[in-house]
Amino acid sequence: MSDLDQRKQFVEDLSDQTDDFSRWYNEVVRKAQLADYAPVRGCMVIRPYGYGLWEHMQRLLDERIVEGFAPQVAWVTQGGNDALEERLAIRPTSEAIIGRMYSRWIESYRDLPVLINQWCNVMRWEKVTRLFLRTAEFLWQEGHTAHATAEEGKAEVLRMLEVYRDFAETDLAIPVHAGRKSAAEKFAGAEMTYSIEALMRDGKALQAGTSHDLGQHFAKVFDITFQDEQGKRQFVHQTSWGASTRLIGAVIMTHGDDQGLRLPPRIAPVQAVVVPIWRKDEERAAVTEFIAKVVEALRGRVRLYVDDRDQYTPGWKYNEHELRGVPVRIEVGPKDVAKAAVMSVRRDGRAKESIPLAALGERLPALLEEIQRALFESARAFREENTATARTVAEMEAHFATRRGFVAVPWDGSAAFEAEAKERTGATLRCVPLDQTPWAGLAGAGQDVALFARAY
Amino acid sequence: MSDLDQRKQFVEDLSDQTDDFSRWYNEVVRKAQLADYAPVRGCMVIRPYGYGLWEHMQRLLDERIVEGFAPQVAWVTQGGNDALEERLAIRPTSEAIIGRMYSRWIESYRDLPVLINQWCNVMRWEKVTRLFLRTAEFLWQEGHTAHATAEEGKAEVLRMLEVYRDFAETDLAIPVHAGRKSAAEKFAGAEMTYSIEALMRDGKALQAGTSHDLGQHFAKVFDITFQDEQGKRQFVHQTSWGASTRLIGAVIMTHGDDQGLRLPPRIAPVQAVVVPIWRKDEERAAVTEFIAKVVEALRGRVRLYVDDRDQYTPGWKYNEHELRGVPVRIEVGPKDVAKAAVMSVRRDGRAKESIPLAALGERLPALLEEIQRALFESARAFREENTATARTVAEMEAHFATRRGFVAVPWDGSAAFEAEAKERTGATLRCVPLDQTPWAGLAGAGQDVALFARAY
Repeated sequence: MSDLDQRKQFVEDLSDQTDDFSRWYNEVVRKAQLADYAPVRGCMVIRPYGYGLWEHMQRLLDERIVEGFAPQVAWVTQGGNDALEERLAIRPTSEAIIGRMYSRWIESYRDLPVLINQWCNVMRWEKVTRLFLRTAEFLWQEGHTAHATAEEGKAEVLRMLEVYRDFAETDLAIPVHAGRKSAAEKFAGAEMTYSIEALMRDGKALQAGTSHDLGQHFAKVFDITFQDEQGKRQFVHQTSWGASTRLIGAVIMTHGDDQGLRLPPRIAPVQAVVVPIWRKDEERAAVTEFIAKVVEALRGRVRLYVDDRDQYTPGWKYNEHELRGVPVRIEVGPKDVAKAAVMSVRRDGRAKESIPLAALGERLPALLEEIQRALFESARAFREENTATARTVAEMEAHFATRRGFVAVPWDGSAAFEAEAKERTGATLRCVPLDQTPWAGLAGAGQDVALFARAY
Repeated sequence: MSDLDQRKQFVEDLSDQTDDFSRWYNEVVRKAQLADYAPVRGCMVIRPYGYGLWEHMQRLLDERIVEGFAPQVAWVTQGGNDALEERLAIRPTSEAIIGRMYSRWIESYRDLPVLINQWCNVMRWEKVTRLFLRTAEFLWQEGHTAHATAEEGKAEVLRMLEVYRDFAETDLAIPVHAGRKSAAEKFAGAEMTYSIEALMRDGKALQAGTSHDLGQHFAKVFDITFQDEQGKRQFVHQTSWGASTRLIGAVIMTHGDDQGLRLPPRIAPVQAVVVPIWRKDEERAAVTEFIAKVVEALRGRVRLYVDDRDQYTPGWKYNEHELRGVPVRIEVGPKDVAKAAVMSVRRDGRAKESIPLAALGERLPALLEEIQRALFESARAFREENTATARTVAEMEAHFATRRGFVAVPWDGSAAFEAEAKERTGATLRCVPLDQTPWAGLAGAGQDVALFARAY
């Protein structure tokens, strides 16, 4: 088999999602060249296409921002050729280092609030790993804030939760429930943890971002105090919040289908791919000339890639770009040139539309917005179909015996109920949604509706 | 002492550069809030002002891009609570991991060239550390390319060297010599190493970027081969090149003076600071209103910060922003308002200029460009004054007994000469400049001029 044939087979043979979701996931990540396994166990190498996706997500989230980790820490015990007197942890999150620095940097109420966000890599010694979802090393942003009062801290926690919700729904086209975690599921160092929870196409939930009210816990550990306006020393109130490359996993598993990825246009590294179609040399010249006009019409409006590689057929290119989730394909053949138009094909539903060259600069951005909304609506419909209600653990057990998805249950806040539900169904309490209106009437007085699901 | 007084003193008491350059450096980095020491030995925490600088440098360099490390490696030997069977190195540079991945990703001549650059953190177990210049963990970009032929690889190495030279001189205003390293100074895994070399204000040289011709060394170690057009398997030819946060140290030590930093406008997080001046409340209203017009005139043209903090006097603000290296200060008082003008003061030479509001949008960007050029010219003049020539090791010894700077010496390529010079003068061979014209006539036939200096 020639290397070209090998490569074709590599791209073409994608498992069906419904046959084996986990295998489909691993294959699509590698075949679409988002990431690959690194030689070190549990680590991944993010490839340029995957990193491009991450960069768009970074930019969009950045614009909106101004656990007990011990068993998951990698310990450095040897520096060069010398054993260290004190072993060093590679940061699993930066609360400890941030705490030490804030205790130096904060002196007065004038220094507050401190609002710092960093994009960095962290390391956790995970036993079971999967590309993007859970790897030993991963990329994330972590925000750390310090405030003079508890009220300001709590407001920041909810502000960031809303930033994550809006980012997930608007830019990633992923519908999420924003809510608070139970005591069992919160970050060990937090007073309260809030999260956004999404539903993947295999019916499992995925926590896609967290916002923690740290109270004065770390302030007391690291002695982070400030002099208030009356000259009294006070401990600061802190928050932290983070979202990681795990979001790329969420995008893949929310929108992907049996043909591969379906990327939301707002974060797609390539929003539209132009595929030239010609048989004879005289056709080629006309098609190439016309494509130059297409590129000109879309310059600065759409992230475009012209796939003029000679060694692949148009049909082959269609498959490859579908696999890679490019939202729109633009076909340009002699008939299109004759009409001064292009044929656009949507990745999300394969709808075709002939667009005159003169209208392209306006129509294509609008089409991309339609696709963005359609992906969100489709994911929301899937989530609604896969959300049930129950009133007891027995009802939950009956549900999870045959189905997955979210189950909304009235919850009085008891840890015993939560533990029993987990024991009998494998589902965990994902969150108590801030917005309870979809389940009005389900919960009695003194109760809230909590969402349970099996989760990544 | 109140916390405000403490803070004032912290900013004001900066050591003189000429008294103790090293102390000046450490103080200015911390007082200007570029970075601080982390609780872990040899590590630093880059603060928002320093990170802003780095982000501008990243953006500008990104636009231009599409050793034997063993004793410097931090080893992970414990994962969670378990000892590892095989110790893991935290990457000091990524040649090894890149090599493994390229051996998987490259199959055919159609895949070449591969051009990948990553911005990331790396870790080296340094014995002696200094903020930005040499820390255990630091940020950098590392490019790794693979080519079908040796010629293409060599062309890439020189292309990137020129990118670094132009970036350093144009954006950082740092004059550099671009040239090749000696066998003793090259990266252990390279056939040939090229670097750019700058001169700091204490007369020591600093290597500010490197570009390596790796030949087929790593290709053979990691079995990175491709099928050529004739169907034969060949090893690829590789290059790698990198520049790090060390460049921030170079900016500080090239341009700083006894009042603090002097940041080149192209990378300054704040290019101009507006300081309101008023005594009576009725003056305040007029000044504030006028400043709104100043902001409007400069929107989208200049990175501006209006320092309207009430608790500091104008004089205090002048000191602080001089310390932080803001290129231009804009003073707005009642007299300026009456003239519909502002008073600009250059950080580099303190020249004052009254600029009418109507001209500000044009004049200030031009002024910033003048400052950028002036900083470069000043650094170049300093370098020329501190560059001598010698013909023998004895002459070099006489020079370095009383002075520092670059010494240009004819060099026949012998390792013995280089070793003797290092032994007797403490200076190392920084590079053999590609551009030999400044020293025409100094070297005999079969010789090149090499630059020696004591170095960071």
